[in-house]
Amino acid sequence: MKIALDVFGGDNAPESNIKGVFSYLDHYGDSAEEIILLGDRAQIETTIKSLSRDISDVSIIHTNEVVGMDERASRIFREKPDSSLVKSIQLVKDGEAQAAVSAGNTGALLTSSLFLIGKIPGIRRPAFAPFIPTNNGGFILCDAGANADSKPQHLVQFALMASAYIEHLKNRPNPKVALLNIGREENKGNELMTNAYPMLKTHVRNFIGNIESRYILEGKADVVICDGFTGNIVLKLTEGIISHLMGWIQERIKVHSADNDISSIITPVFTDIKNTLDHEEHGATPLLGINGVVMKCHGSSSERGIKNSIIAAQKTVEEKLIDGIADRLSRHSDIFDEDIAISETNPV
Amino acid sequence: MKIALDVFGGDNAPESNIKGVFSYLDHYGDSAEEIILLGDRAQIETTIKSLSRDISDVSIIHTNEVVGMDERASRIFREKPDSSLVKSIQLVKDGEAQAAVSAGNTGALLTSSLFLIGKIPGIRRPAFAPFIPTNNGGFILCDAGANADSKPQHLVQFALMASAYIEHLKNRPNPKVALLNIGREENKGNELMTNAYPMLKTHVRNFIGNIESRYILEGKADVVICDGFTGNIVLKLTEGIISHLMGWIQERIKVHSADNDISSIITPVFTDIKNTLDHEEHGATPLLGINGVVMKCHGSSSERGIKNSIIAAQKTVEEKLIDGIADRLSRHSDIFDEDIAISETNPV
Repeated sequence: MKIALDVFGGDNAPESNIKGVFSYLDHYGDSAEEIILLGDRAQIETTIKSLSRDISDVSIIHTNEVVGMDERASRIFREKPDSSLVKSIQLVKDGEAQAAVSAGNTGALLTSSLFLIGKIPGIRRPAFAPFIPTNNGGFILCDAGANADSKPQHLVQFALMASAYIEHLKNRPNPKVALLNIGREENKGNELMTNAYPMLKTHVRNFIGNIESRYILEGKADVVICDGFTGNIVLKLTEGIISHLMGWIQERIKVHSADNDISSIITPVFTDIKNTLDHEEHGATPLLGINGVVMKCHGSSSERGIKNSIIAAQKTVEEKLIDGIADRLSRHSDIFDEDIAISETNPV
Repeated sequence: MKIALDVFGGDNAPESNIKGVFSYLDHYGDSAEEIILLGDRAQIETTIKSLSRDISDVSIIHTNEVVGMDERASRIFREKPDSSLVKSIQLVKDGEAQAAVSAGNTGALLTSSLFLIGKIPGIRRPAFAPFIPTNNGGFILCDAGANADSKPQHLVQFALMASAYIEHLKNRPNPKVALLNIGREENKGNELMTNAYPMLKTHVRNFIGNIESRYILEGKADVVICDGFTGNIVLKLTEGIISHLMGWIQERIKVHSADNDISSIITPVFTDIKNTLDHEEHGATPLLGINGVVMKCHGSSSERGIKNSIIAAQKTVEEKLIDGIADRLSRHSDIFDEDIAISETNPV
């Protein structure tokens, strides 16, 4: 297996990305897969040397361009075909790599994957479906921002794809799927949710109904389904509140512990929580619905995040997640078939 | 001034509601306004006696029916005209009270107010606009669930109403208004948000653009505008995460402080945070857009919450918030005029 890594994607590129590769290679030793590093060859080689590592342990494909994190995504695959991001996806399309891994611009990764690799047959829209770790086992949030606007049929496909994904990721058979909504009762919600509810009931084996946002951390559902706008709001709000509250608590502890040093207790408490919530533990998330393995790492991935992302990519290929999704979808052909034009404005 | 209180609305009714009234009366003494208690007369009188208070300090209007917290809201005003909730609103309609206060079913309160009192002329949709207290001054979230689906014009009216409200509530002139969205740039978001953005720019004096959900607690905006579905998700997620994380931290502290009692430090830390986030401090929220003062208290209001809600109702009447909203709207008549049928399914 060959795994293509976009060396110049992410906030900590290229150093953390390269370190992550060697961390992966060290971990697997002789049984490691071949990693193809894409980016400016001179910079990659200089970085590898500065880390006192061996260039011959990796493959390098030189690219001239870099995709910015805030760059408008919709035409990147045309405008920057020789960027490390687009070229990584091109390798998967051409069968020269079995997976692409990037911590770069999510929108660019998505649109490039859509145009170069395309969707799994029958899939209407791809979805971004991160695993949200919690102290109750965690859940998949889908869609968390691949699409700005969705139709009820899309939500059903998200549910089927995300179910296949969490079975793969966490070995949770028959996962509980809930619809994110503003009330428990079937008739609650906006037009999208009230229309999606009966379709989910029909097509999703273990659909447990609506879930209110206040309970999503409580471990009631393995998969939480919503449109990409709402999901992106939820994802960022969750991260924002947790980080805000942790900072605030630490500030108040300083005020109240002037004469006592309680850091020996508080530090491990915060470490426990950070470790549980750590998105790097699971590494990258596959873009669900793309007909090839394209893995999106968190933009702020460190060495460890990249290492775990490469491991996740390898596992996604080995366990044939894409076949699993296609198989699951094939049993629901009545929610198939609609040509969707890709919007020029990308939401992510 | 007469203020009508729905004695049988809320999780802690009737006792907390009645205690709240007397707490208000004690606080204001001779200058207190007249409070009309609506509900079962016998129960109200028994409760007042059990509190060793004087029945002659309040007015009582007997009602036969009670609206349940989860009852379907849309026809309550027709089905239960003799409920404490509906009758409170009827008093405002008839000019026999200047404000109604209820901790009951939000949807029932909203639809009953719409049908009995109606909207401020020009207003298309009412909005639920709670003040969210934070350690950075807090903000108004609008709409937080009065409407399940909204149009761009509605969002502009929400912004104008919420601006008038926070000027009244917090004396913040020229409040900063932001649109809740999934990216900062103008072209980001779903169809609703991309269409609302230019309209907000035109009509709202201090529109500061999009805000991502992760930053809403940071004090960047005085008013955060969104559709009611998204706002309700945000409101409940914020409450849910904070409560979840506080419990989780306390649990981990127990694990790590087996030999040390640090409660003397941790208890005041959590008290500080709870006090800052305390929704009872501000009491009830007026239903914006209704052509009369109808105040919605938090469902779990205690004695203190009810007392502060009556104070908030009094202030809303005295400071003529409704005239302020009407005045502000009158300067934007191009976003007026559209007859909206009230949906039978109520979202709240």
